[in-house]
Amino acid sequence: MTKHRLEMFSDGVFAIVITILILNIHLPENTSTQHLGEALKALFPDILAYVTSFILIGLYWIAHHTSFHHIHKVNGVLLWLNMLLLLFVSFMPFPASLLGKYPTEPVPLMIYGINLMAANLVAFLMTWYTCYHPELLTEPFLLKDFRKQFPIYIFVNGSYLAAIIMAPFLPTVSYIIYILIAWILVFYYGKMGVK
Amino acid sequence: MTKHRLEMFSDGVFAIVITILILNIHLPENTSTQHLGEALKALFPDILAYVTSFILIGLYWIAHHTSFHHIHKVNGVLLWLNMLLLLFVSFMPFPASLLGKYPTEPVPLMIYGINLMAANLVAFLMTWYTCYHPELLTEPFLLKDFRKQFPIYIFVNGSYLAAIIMAPFLPTVSYIIYILIAWILVFYYGKMGVK
Amino acid sequence: MTKHRLEMFSDGVFAIVITILILNIHLPENTSTQHLGEALKALFPDILAYVTSFILIGLYWIAHHTSFHHIHKVNGVLLWLNMLLLLFVSFMPFPASLLGKYPTEPVPLMIYGINLMAANLVAFLMTWYTCYHPELLTEPFLLKDFRKQFPIYIFVNGSYLAAIIMAPFLPTVSYIIYILIAWILVFYYGKMGVK
Amino acid sequence: MTKHRLEMFSDGVFAIVITILILNIHLPENTSTQHLGEALKALFPDILAYVTSFILIGLYWIAHHTSFHHIHKVNGVLLWLNMLLLLFVSFMPFPASLLGKYPTEPVPLMIYGINLMAANLVAFLMTWYTCYHPELLTEPFLLKDFRKQFPIYIFVNGSYLAAIIMAPFLPTVSYIIYILIAWILVFYYGKMGVK
Repeated sequence: MTKHRLEMFSDGVFAIVITILILNIHLPENTSTQHLGEALKALFPDILAYVTSFILIGLYWIAHHTSFHHIHKVNGVLLWLNMLLLLFVSFMPFPASLLGKYPTEPVPLMIYGINLMAANLVAFLMTWYTCYHPELLTEPFLLKDFRKQFPIYIFVNGSYLAAIIMAPFLPTVSYIIYILIAWILVFYYGKMGVK
Repeated sequence: MTKHRLEMFSDGVFAIVITILILNIHLPENTSTQHLGEALKALFPDILAYVTSFILIGLYWIAHHTSFHHIHKVNGVLLWLNMLLLLFVSFMPFPASLLGKYPTEPVPLMIYGINLMAANLVAFLMTWYTCYHPELLTEPFLLKDFRKQFPIYIFVNGSYLAAIIMAPFLPTVSYIIYILIAWILVFYYGKMGVK
Repeated sequence: MTKHRLEMFSDGVFAIVITILILNIHLPENTSTQHLGEALKALFPDILAYVTSFILIGLYWIAHHTSFHHIHKVNGVLLWLNMLLLLFVSFMPFPASLLGKYPTEPVPLMIYGINLMAANLVAFLMTWYTCYHPELLTEPFLLKDFRKQFPIYIFVNGSYLAAIIMAPFLPTVSYIIYILIAWILVFYYGKMGVK
Repeated sequence: MTKHRLEMFSDGVFAIVITILILNIHLPENTSTQHLGEALKALFPDILAYVTSFILIGLYWIAHHTSFHHIHKVNGVLLWLNMLLLLFVSFMPFPASLLGKYPTEPVPLMIYGINLMAANLVAFLMTWYTCYHPELLTEPFLLKDFRKQFPIYIFVNGSYLAAIIMAPFLPTVSYIIYILIAWILVFYYGKMGVK
C-alpha cells in the first residue's frame, strides 16, 4: 500500500461523505404548497447541522492531509487506524441527521460529540504511533514536537466532553460548543497556514 | 496543501454532487401501473430542474478549473474560500429538488437564485484575493485582467438578482432566467475556449 | 482543460453512477418478517435492471476510455459534448429504477431505450467531431477508420430502436433485447481487446 | 485500458460503496421525541451490520490492491472479471441493509454470505487467471505461490458456506461467523504487512 494510494482513497471517502450530507436535507413527502414556507422554516436546524458537519468533516480532511505530510510508508497498523478513522468520518451523516431533526434533545447531541471524539482519538493514535515508528516517516517526528499539539487536542476533546456531559442539562450550550469549536478550528488552521 | 490535492478533492465533490442530483428524481412510492403515465408527466419539472442544475454545476466545475489555472500554491484563506465554494455547490441538490417539486412557487425560485449568487460571490472573492497575493500564482494576475471579467460577473449575478426579485410576481420569467443564463454561459465558455 | 483532468472527472462520474444504482434496490418500508421472502422475490426485476444497467454503464465507461485514447487536447465543443454524455449516463439510475419497478410496462422500456440511444448518439458525435479536428488528436483518426465502427453503431442503436418500437406490443422481447445487447457488447469488447 | 486507470476506477467504486453504507442507517420517518431513545436502540443491529460491512469492503479494497500489485497490463478478460468483482462489491449495501433490519432471519444471512462468496470467487478467478497469463504481470506469479493462498481462501469461503448452511437453524452463530471472519482477516492482513 503506497501512501499515495491510501491518501487518494481517503480523499475519495472525505469528498463523498461531505457531499452526501446534503441528502439529510429534504422536505417531508407530500408537503402541500400552502405549508411550504412553514416546512422550509422547520428545516433550519437541519441546515445548521449540515453546515457545522460540513466544516468539521472539512477539518478532518485537512488534519488528515497534515498528518500524512511526513509519512512516506504505510504499514498494516497505520492502514487499519486509517480505516477506523474513515469509519468514524463516514458515520457522521447519521449523527448530523439526528442533530438536524432533534436539535434540543440530549441523546443526538451526545452521539454527535462521541462520534467527533472517537474520530479525534483515532487521529491522535495515528500521530502517536508514527512517533514510535520513524521508519514510516520522511524525517523523524519527535515526541516533543507531538507534545506541542497536546494543548489543542486537550482543548478540543475537553470541549466535546463538556458538551456531551452538558447535553442532558443545557442542550443549547452543548450545541453552541460544537459550532464554536468548528469555527475556532477554521481560524486556528487558517492562521497556522497549510503545509 | 498542494494545489493538486485541493483540485482533486474539489473535482471529487463536483463529480459527486452532479451525479447525486438524479436521486431527486423518483416516482411517489406505490405509484400504481395505471397512474404511471400521469406520474411520469408530473416529473417533467423535476427533470427540467435536474438538467438546469447539471449544467450550472458543470459550469462551476469548469470555472473552478479556469480560476485554478494560474495558482501554484494554496494558503489557509484560499483553502477555506474553496471549502465555502464547495459548501454552496454541494448544497445545490436541495434547491434543485425544491425547484423540481414547486416550479412556480416564489420561495424555491428565490432559494435557488440565492444559492447560485452565493457560490458566484465566493468564486469572485477567490479570484479577487489572488490578485493581491501574487506569491500564490505562477504569474501575476493583474487587477486590470480581473476587471475584464467584471461585465460577465455583473451580467450573471445581476440576472440572478432580477430573477430573485421577480420570483414572487413573475415566477415563470424568473425560472426562464436561470435556464437562459445556464445556456448563455455554456456558449460563452464554449466559444472562449478552454484553457 | 487537459484531457487528463476531463478523464478523471468523467471516471469519477462513471464510478459514482455505477455505485449508486444499488440505492434503487430496497424493500418497502415496514416489510414484516413473515412477508420478507415474498418481498425479496418481488425485488427480482429490480435486481435484473440493476445488473443490466451496471453492465451498460461499465460499457459506456470502457467506450469512453477507448474514444479518448487518441485525444490529446480538449476544446470547448468536445468538453460540452462530454458533459452531455455524462448527463445521459448520470440519468440512467432513474430509467433503471422504472424498469425495475415496472418491468413489463411499455413506457419504462421506452424511456430506458431512449436514454441509451441518446448516450450512444452523443458518443457517436464526439468521435465524428474528432475526425474533422485532427489538431485535437495525437494521430489523425481517419473518416475511413471511423466508418469501420458504423456497423456496430447501427447494430446497437437499431436494436434499441426496435426495442423501443416493440415495447407497447411485446414488452418482454423489448427487455430481452436490452439484456442481450449488453452481453453481446461485453463479449465484443472483451474479444476486441482493450487499448 | 491501463492498469492505473482501472485501479483508479475501482478505488472510486470501493470508496463510494464504503461511504454510502451509512445511508442504510436512519430512523423511521416521524419518530416522535419520546420514542427517540427506543428508536435509536432499535438501530443497533443496523450499526452492527454497517461496521461489519465497512470492514469487509475495506478488506476487499486491500485485497484488490494486493492482487494488482504484480499486474502491469489488463486485457479484456481481466477487465470484465474486475467489473464482475465491482458488481458484487457495489451490491453489498443491499444485503447489509437486510442484515441490519432482519438480523435473526435466515434469508438475509444467506444472501449476505452468498454475496461475500461470489465476490471472493471472482477475486480468486482473477488471481488464478493471471497465473496462466504471465504476459500481464511484471514478474511471473507461479501456481505454487498461488497455491500458498489456498488455505486462507478455503478457510474464509468454507466459513461463509458454513454460515449460509447454518442460517436457518442457528442464525446467531451464522452472524457471528461473518463478524469473526472480518476481524480475523483484519489481523491476518495487518500482521502479513501491506505491499
